[in-house]
Amino acid sequence: MSTRRPDHVHIREVGPRDGFQNEPERIATDDKIRLINALGRAGFKRIEVASFVRPDVIPQLSDGVQVLDRVDVPDDVSLMVLVPNSKGLDNALKMRHRFHEVAVFVSASETHNKKNVNRTVDETMADNDVMVGRIKAEGLNCAAVIATSFGCPYEGRIDLKRVLDLAERFAEAGATEVGFGDTTGIANPAYAGEFFTAALERLPGVEVTAHFHNTRGQGLANAFAALEAGCASFESSFGELGGCPVPAGSTGNIATEDLVSMFHEMGVATGLSLPAIIEAAREAQSVLGRTLTSHSIIAGPVTWPSSIA
Amino acid sequence: MSTRRPDHVHIREVGPRDGFQNEPERIATDDKIRLINALGRAGFKRIEVASFVRPDVIPQLSDGVQVLDRVDVPDDVSLMVLVPNSKGLDNALKMRHRFHEVAVFVSASETHNKKNVNRTVDETMADNDVMVGRIKAEGLNCAAVIATSFGCPYEGRIDLKRVLDLAERFAEAGATEVGFGDTTGIANPAYAGEFFTAALERLPGVEVTAHFHNTRGQGLANAFAALEAGCASFESSFGELGGCPVPAGSTGNIATEDLVSMFHEMGVATGLSLPAIIEAAREAQSVLGRTLTSHSIIAGPVTWPSSIA
Repeated sequence: MSTRRPDHVHIREVGPRDGFQNEPERIATDDKIRLINALGRAGFKRIEVASFVRPDVIPQLSDGVQVLDRVDVPDDVSLMVLVPNSKGLDNALKMRHRFHEVAVFVSASETHNKKNVNRTVDETMADNDVMVGRIKAEGLNCAAVIATSFGCPYEGRIDLKRVLDLAERFAEAGATEVGFGDTTGIANPAYAGEFFTAALERLPGVEVTAHFHNTRGQGLANAFAALEAGCASFESSFGELGGCPVPAGSTGNIATEDLVSMFHEMGVATGLSLPAIIEAAREAQSVLGRTLTSHSIIAGPVTWPSSIA
Repeated sequence: MSTRRPDHVHIREVGPRDGFQNEPERIATDDKIRLINALGRAGFKRIEVASFVRPDVIPQLSDGVQVLDRVDVPDDVSLMVLVPNSKGLDNALKMRHRFHEVAVFVSASETHNKKNVNRTVDETMADNDVMVGRIKAEGLNCAAVIATSFGCPYEGRIDLKRVLDLAERFAEAGATEVGFGDTTGIANPAYAGEFFTAALERLPGVEVTAHFHNTRGQGLANAFAALEAGCASFESSFGELGGCPVPAGSTGNIATEDLVSMFHEMGVATGLSLPAIIEAAREAQSVLGRTLTSHSIIAGPVTWPSSIA
């Protein structure tokens, strides 16, 4: 048994942003709010709910202001918004009273960054340095996200040192959390274990977050490897919603309900209600009108005799 | 990095038996043969192709004789048949020249065994002792399977010692391989790691095989944990076909293509062609006329720049 395995973890639900963003059909604002409220009832203390990107780029998320304004979750739930640049941060800050964390991001892969936000990594990081400072000055938490941390189809494996240098730069600017994203589902558990061992060693005092996709079914194996390396912070998406706009075929994030099932069965506490998450995912399924790819949504939680009344 | 991680593994494809068995609509014998032949071309050296159970119990597998007779795979492919009892073994042995391995089984859970084959574990094992001897005397390999090794919904966790005692009894009778089945998808990677560490220690000289289901999305995490414990033999089902008749909702085995993708990305050799497995799984999808739940079937293999021509 791993001595570095944490006995409890934090899970941020990112479906309402990272998941919904990839849905081709517009989801009604009322439906989004109902689903976010259901997630709040499931016990999440961190939910990513909106993105302040240009509405013509991602029309699906153009109702961020309304979502933030009307969402109704317990007071201790920390809502996160994602901003791609200073303009996005300006817009987000108009709703300053309605959220608690801001995510900024860059791709470790130069090519992926260019395709995703049409800027070089240096240009993005220069803007990020300023944004992180502003976010901190506002008294908000800043969670930096490094996309393609485990490699990308255009450039292959990204040098680990390069990824951790970016992480350290974010931390020096004032980010309290750095999330490492497996944007195109290219990580494997052997590398994930090595990666998080190195990241946790290199970033003392920073919350190190694992953000895996389940593109090739290995997402939970990667999450387990990260956990064994000592990682105690994860992001996932209810119903296995999500993916990445580029390249095509980059399917969903890891399913929150499958991740929570795995952790609970291992005796790792999450503070979450698995049945309530499954209920929210089933509601998402009916809102979206298609079968989602999460497994627990079909099987339900593991039933042990003691849990059968 | 784990020092016990093998650098190559054996994977038995069990879709043509364990997978097809769970399909409600009858699959044409010609389609089965075409799919098995495709699996042979993908490089599998072990394929479970038939079961000699009563045709009224599992009509889907009543064409075992025809499948064995007409399947066309390379000479070095070891075909396996599963037999539930001595009667089944009698029937199987009529096709003795067409297969190389026989699987016999028992459930570690008394209740599951009763529900599955309507006999006590003792009754099943008494018959198994005789069958293993006969199989060995025929010059065939005998692979014993212990279902519900990691627990079952009726009895909960099954004492590890009880499971390994059954395994040792099989080995003493002459089984060269013991497979531990997570029949209802109840295992977690922490327990899987402990389990295979103990099993490998207890069963020197016996091939120890991991047979996981992906009922709650954790199947590959369990396989990774078993690998890290030193397990070098796995069973999986192309297209994520499979499950278990009891209880309801016990969905598919782990998907071979996702398992192979994970191993190859980790640098663990399988001797298999991932693109050819995905092709076979896509063919199964079109034969079955429904979307299968494997992930690599959608995403394809990981593309690294070096693999892009």
